[in-house]
Amino acid sequence: MTMPKALQVFPSSEYLRRLAAVKAEMERRDISALVVVSPANIAYLTGYTAKSGYVPQGLIVALNDEEPTFITRRMDAPAAVHQMFIDRSRVVGYPEALIANPDKDGWDAIIDNLLDAGFAKANIGVEEQSLSSKTLEKFRSRAPAAKILDFGNTVCWIRGVKSDLEIALMREAAAIADAGMLRAREVIRPDVSEADAAAEIIAQLIRGTDGKQGTDVASFTLCASPRTSTAHISWADDHFRHGSQINIELAGVRHGYTSALMRTFSIGKPSDTLRRLHEGEAAGLEAALAVVKPGATCGDVATAFNETLGKFGFEKQSRCGYAIGIDWTEPTASFKVGDPTILKPNMTFHLMLGNWIDEDLGYAISETLRVTDAGVETFSALPREIFQL
Amino acid sequence: MTMPKALQVFPSSEYLRRLAAVKAEMERRDISALVVVSPANIAYLTGYTAKSGYVPQGLIVALNDEEPTFITRRMDAPAAVHQMFIDRSRVVGYPEALIANPDKDGWDAIIDNLLDAGFAKANIGVEEQSLSSKTLEKFRSRAPAAKILDFGNTVCWIRGVKSDLEIALMREAAAIADAGMLRAREVIRPDVSEADAAAEIIAQLIRGTDGKQGTDVASFTLCASPRTSTAHISWADDHFRHGSQINIELAGVRHGYTSALMRTFSIGKPSDTLRRLHEGEAAGLEAALAVVKPGATCGDVATAFNETLGKFGFEKQSRCGYAIGIDWTEPTASFKVGDPTILKPNMTFHLMLGNWIDEDLGYAISETLRVTDAGVETFSALPREIFQL
Repeated sequence: MTMPKALQVFPSSEYLRRLAAVKAEMERRDISALVVVSPANIAYLTGYTAKSGYVPQGLIVALNDEEPTFITRRMDAPAAVHQMFIDRSRVVGYPEALIANPDKDGWDAIIDNLLDAGFAKANIGVEEQSLSSKTLEKFRSRAPAAKILDFGNTVCWIRGVKSDLEIALMREAAAIADAGMLRAREVIRPDVSEADAAAEIIAQLIRGTDGKQGTDVASFTLCASPRTSTAHISWADDHFRHGSQINIELAGVRHGYTSALMRTFSIGKPSDTLRRLHEGEAAGLEAALAVVKPGATCGDVATAFNETLGKFGFEKQSRCGYAIGIDWTEPTASFKVGDPTILKPNMTFHLMLGNWIDEDLGYAISETLRVTDAGVETFSALPREIFQL
Repeated sequence: MTMPKALQVFPSSEYLRRLAAVKAEMERRDISALVVVSPANIAYLTGYTAKSGYVPQGLIVALNDEEPTFITRRMDAPAAVHQMFIDRSRVVGYPEALIANPDKDGWDAIIDNLLDAGFAKANIGVEEQSLSSKTLEKFRSRAPAAKILDFGNTVCWIRGVKSDLEIALMREAAAIADAGMLRAREVIRPDVSEADAAAEIIAQLIRGTDGKQGTDVASFTLCASPRTSTAHISWADDHFRHGSQINIELAGVRHGYTSALMRTFSIGKPSDTLRRLHEGEAAGLEAALAVVKPGATCGDVATAFNETLGKFGFEKQSRCGYAIGIDWTEPTASFKVGDPTILKPNMTFHLMLGNWIDEDLGYAISETLRVTDAGVETFSALPREIFQL
């Protein structure tokens, strides 16, 4: 029996459109073949979300081929055949002997494929930031007549403007994030352990909502008193108490697409300082949203937030957000003073206003948003408040 | 108020012992300062498990300093102060302006620290495999009088032999993995969705067992009919049916330490082919375990498994296992024919007998084990059978 293809998340035309954008950039740079290695970029161009990126794998996009070729470990080829929109003949499993082999690894299989496909003297693009220096050197030494060129974060930048189909998935992911945060509001109580609460919240993020399941577990942070100054701790071996503050950052995931959300909880009345900080952040959030529209820059958004927060006597040192999409952060545009990126319709950002001021004061609020034709759409339906329990 | 230190998972003496082993290797190679960047290696040397490794961070181990220095993003410094055994003065938060900054990033902060600490003309070790070529070039160009030397996977190799304290955590993690697998046996039923089952299983892995919570969610794969030939899919948008086969790979986690476990489930009677494959794999598993003892090689274990499985008419192409510990796989020894690594007491492995033979036949069974003074200890208490539901 042949394994059936998975129900495709997007029609082939959507992937071919994305590939066309990548190829246009390849053409502009006179690159004949591109080796895409970032798992999020591979997902973007093919629909593949299996977790095989801990060993070498590469999607070869050739200027003259309609569909790309995926070179992956033999063990992972069936998942690629199943999930990717490309023809099964374009999934090449390399031998398991290349795993944990100091002499020859999966990169050799990728280079072999390039050489066999006639790119020995071509300009070959690679995502240098995702390759170790030894791997890059292997490309150079095994294809000495080729020119190995850095394609950098180009595919990530192309991902920046979403299609309406992608936006639909991000809205579904945001509804899941909301459901998770509402579950947090139900289960966080004095004497409940942080792990038990996390179990309930994460289970909700997997079950999903409105008939749409979560398709993966994204990074999850729960930083409760006395750890509210920390940003990236999963949860601690501790329980909640009267007076506890809890900062949560979570996300819903739909086929790789991630919508993130942060909120702050307080068991009992929040302190005056926390309330003042919340007021400043919430006002800053509104000020930032008021600036989001096509033509404004990412820097403008950050400036609007910072100036408003400053009026409340607080400062946020970290950037106010970043582009978001497949696998959470896109390493491209940031809501950061001076970031010149010009906003376009269907760019999506995590307006991330988590603020860790000192060891006694940390606070979390955020919105995942889309730039619309005229302004902004925030995906979450939750109120922008400290959830008092 | 100053944030309290977390309850330390290990006494300082344990971390100093680990650091002494690293320093001995530094001394042997005439390296004065080592920049550790692998998150698992940083966890090993300090106790830090927060999820901040998506931006530059480095633990500087200096031959002449008892405690290392951690250079991390300002936002993540409190978590490091909280979790790491080192004095808080040794956690250095670099400015948020270095995030999403094309001109200067966290690596510059790490290099600045090395230069300020007097290593401008020293031999400096780095983990090249964890650095992009541009970052490595930055080390070379900003410290031109220093010699930048590759420390490779040396710290990973030192991690290979566990202390009894580490083994205790891995046993706890294994008990959690067992609880998760037993929860799978309870919840997998016809018409239940894969996501709902995953939610229950993962919630159990977080809640833990015997009063020990799971401290993190490790990678989780659930590959059910018709996807049993895939190895690394989280779960699909599908439900179980009479006749479904389900291959699960999961892990319990205690403070980074990971014990993995695979089992195969069948709703109704397994097919004859699957039963024959199971018999071969289970016999191979016993044969492999019989070989594990100090002095045997990793290759010997693989050979024993392969020869036994072959008698049943099957072959497994992928390696039969790998070293396991913090963050799952250690990139060092493998149960692979010809691997010369000599087994020593308290080495731990995931004897991973997942076997994806063709699109119609995949099967999963595994044990996480410890080499003992005389043989082997497997951590799981579960039977080695196909769980028929």
